[in-house]
Amino acid sequence: MSSTAGQVISCKAAVAWEAGKPLVIEEVEVAPPQAMEVRLKILFTSLCHTDVYFWEAKGQTPMFPRIFGHEAGGIVESVGEGVTDLEPGDHVLPVFTGECKECRHCKSEESNMCDLLRINTDRGVMLNDGKSRFSVRGQPIYHFVGTSTFSEYTVVHAGCVAKINPAAPLDIVCVLSCGISTGLGATLNVAKPEKGSSVAIFGLGAVGLAAAEGARIAGALRIIGVDLNSNRFEEAKKFGVTEFVNPKDYDKPVQEVIAEMTDGGVDRSVECTGSINAMISAFECVHDGWGVAVLVGVPNRDDSFKTHPINFLNEKTLKGTFFGNYKPRSDLPSVVEKELELEKFITHEVPFSEINKAFEYMLSGAGLRCLIRMDA
Amino acid sequence: MSSTAGQVISCKAAVAWEAGKPLVIEEVEVAPPQAMEVRLKILFTSLCHTDVYFWEAKGQTPMFPRIFGHEAGGIVESVGEGVTDLEPGDHVLPVFTGECKECRHCKSEESNMCDLLRINTDRGVMLNDGKSRFSVRGQPIYHFVGTSTFSEYTVVHAGCVAKINPAAPLDIVCVLSCGISTGLGATLNVAKPEKGSSVAIFGLGAVGLAAAEGARIAGALRIIGVDLNSNRFEEAKKFGVTEFVNPKDYDKPVQEVIAEMTDGGVDRSVECTGSINAMISAFECVHDGWGVAVLVGVPNRDDSFKTHPINFLNEKTLKGTFFGNYKPRSDLPSVVEKELELEKFITHEVPFSEINKAFEYMLSGAGLRCLIRMDA
Ligand SMILES: NC(=O)c1ccc[n+]([C@@H]2O[C@H](COP(=O)([O-])OP(=O)(O)OC[C@H]3O[C@@H](n4cnc5c(N)ncnc54)[C@H](O)[C@@H]3O)[C@@H](O)[C@H]2O)c1
Ligand SMILES: NC(=O)c1ccc[n+]([C@@H]2O[C@H](COP(=O)([O-])OP(=O)(O)OC[C@H]3O[C@@H](n4cnc5c(N)ncnc54)[C@H](O)[C@@H]3O)[C@@H](O)[C@H]2O)c1
Ligand SMILES: [Zn+2]
Ligand SMILES: [Zn+2]
Ligand SMILES: [Zn+2]
Ligand SMILES: [Zn+2]
Repeated sequence: MSSTAGQVISCKAAVAWEAGKPLVIEEVEVAPPQAMEVRLKILFTSLCHTDVYFWEAKGQTPMFPRIFGHEAGGIVESVGEGVTDLEPGDHVLPVFTGECKECRHCKSEESNMCDLLRINTDRGVMLNDGKSRFSVRGQPIYHFVGTSTFSEYTVVHAGCVAKINPAAPLDIVCVLSCGISTGLGATLNVAKPEKGSSVAIFGLGAVGLAAAEGARIAGALRIIGVDLNSNRFEEAKKFGVTEFVNPKDYDKPVQEVIAEMTDGGVDRSVECTGSINAMISAFECVHDGWGVAVLVGVPNRDDSFKTHPINFLNEKTLKGTFFGNYKPRSDLPSVVEKELELEKFITHEVPFSEINKAFEYMLSGAGLRCLIRMDA
Repeated sequence: MSSTAGQVISCKAAVAWEAGKPLVIEEVEVAPPQAMEVRLKILFTSLCHTDVYFWEAKGQTPMFPRIFGHEAGGIVESVGEGVTDLEPGDHVLPVFTGECKECRHCKSEESNMCDLLRINTDRGVMLNDGKSRFSVRGQPIYHFVGTSTFSEYTVVHAGCVAKINPAAPLDIVCVLSCGISTGLGATLNVAKPEKGSSVAIFGLGAVGLAAAEGARIAGALRIIGVDLNSNRFEEAKKFGVTEFVNPKDYDKPVQEVIAEMTDGGVDRSVECTGSINAMISAFECVHDGWGVAVLVGVPNRDDSFKTHPINFLNEKTLKGTFFGNYKPRSDLPSVVEKELELEKFITHEVPFSEINKAFEYMLSGAGLRCLIRMDA
């Protein structure tokens, strides 16, 4: 039992006080975990584009002040009542979508959309009492997707925590806590390309390049990367991308460009941009008869997916996924054991005190994942 | 060799001279089949809603004068050059979508969208020479989806003809040439409900009720029929439908009604209406995590399928199909051999001379299929 168990912990957290304004490192009070909750010491976290959308709050519901962060690795500090399968010292990855292991989804082989713990971007409080575990100078601070990893300590529902092999390097496998598992799973678990097939990947950020890795692992022959940022193309080759298309280089819709390149369309596509136009293109660029498109990007609140219904009658399939259809507690421990070259995804590194730089890197499209070291 | 082989045949056909106007029985000249074509003597035909849409030409490209009809049974009268697997006297079902057996689609296990012979509603001529085989008083008359079965004789591409067991009663199995196979296949080949699952069927015409039969055959426990016409409900029980919803009876969208009835949504849905609103409802009413919706209805030219993309991220899948994904030549002969109670679908019967009554029955929602006897 750690000496801090049951106590409020004072520590540093990066608080977003206002939409789009730099985070402020504050001294935050973190309450002890309640029933079925755990308190984690976060060692490493990284920035995913989903954090950025809700911080910008342009197309999403604003909820401030808030502690963002959901891609991270840490160690269990203490556990609340009723938590039996985690104990202090366990190495864990917190995940934005949980697994209660009891509901219809958790019992289904197909779904990871747990009724109790599925992603909820508009809930800024813990389930147990509808309150926050964070406060700054007495003011409660909202949680984000149940993880809020931009804090030295955070409180998470035990169902949103994957216990992993303590020998796994947390400063690297932390990226599996969201983006990389999401992209990889979107391809391997949902799009399921066949050996020798063609796959288009929309968006060559970390999520998209993990999807490309998935396509390579599945034996896809042609992996067509699509991005508005041509700087992404050089990097993308390391992830198996064989051809590149920048929609800006053409006068016609990118789905037509891809159809011409591939004699009618790709066998699979995976959209990892969050842009509604890219979602539509990703669907329309798959081959009729057998093509499958998978949406991964987080859309704006008011987006509308529009296409002519004949595209469906022409036997194109459209799917989507959260977290690549992995069940966090059941599946993540073995994803951690996969031989993935995760270092390739970590292009930047900053100390926690410079967390705002991670936002700048992402907004400028400078790199893939920026690792944030909590102890530095 | 029949005595008419190689000759122009004069016979009766029901010509649609203008959109929405009653068909006129005319003396039509039917040219002999060219390379890879066959000329069929149609014995029985029935009316499918797709004929009605293109005849009304409200949401579809008008093309007149035209001979409609695509659900039929007949006998080969003569064959054109290069046709080796059909001969005069064969019992056949013409199909609006063909199978060349050579293209990527025909070779794929997943697709029935033959590159050469897939449905083309806007082509009113034969592929071989880009011309019509029909004329009335010297004026060419357009074909419809390559079948034009509202004629005592018609010319069809050999790849659009399924040769069936001559013992099968053509006056009954003719309904397998479009609607019944389409609905059955949409469920069995595409939606694939599991034993014990729940299935919603939108539209309880012949196509939808065949989809319901498919759900019953697959062992679905709840089969929820949705139709704006409450008269359809009594009939639907014979096809395995267990519950009924008329969207008009509720103040809220039917997808919400179904979600409430089924604790979050049905496992599968099959849309057989042609209404864009029903297509959207059919998609949105499936359960997140694992639900699959299949579109079958033929949309209007200008329809737009709109939904919030988060519905896909919530792990709902949307598909569509022509002809229930059956390959006409490879699969239809064995569908004919299935023990299906096809008589249930034939609620009306008229002699060819009264074909306009079949249109009235369909427009008023009076029944399911109206059999048109060519010899009467
Ligand atoms: N479904 C999930 O479970 C899940 C999990 C993690 C991330 N996401 C989402 O995945 C997306 C990618 O995340 P990321 O962290 O890799 O972001 P990122 O910013 O690193 O990468 C996104 C890439 O998409 C490109 N892009 C943007 N609009 C485009 C368009 N119209 N066409 C082509 N390329 C375009 C950008 O240039 C960028 O390179 C985001 O929308 C994120 O919210 C979803
Ligand atoms: N994809 C294919 O291969 C294929 C093949 C055959 C027919 N079709 C299409 O399938 C559809 C059904 O054909 P059918 O011959 O059974 O027609 P039908 O007219 O006999 O049946 C359609 C039923 O849908 C109902 N309906 C209409 N709008 C509705 C709505 N908004 N909500 C609920 N119910 C609604 C009608 O009341 C009717 O009972 C048509 O659109 C037809 O063009 C497609
Ligand atoms: Zn993320
Ligand atoms: Zn659950
Ligand atoms: Zn039809
Ligand atoms: Zn073919």
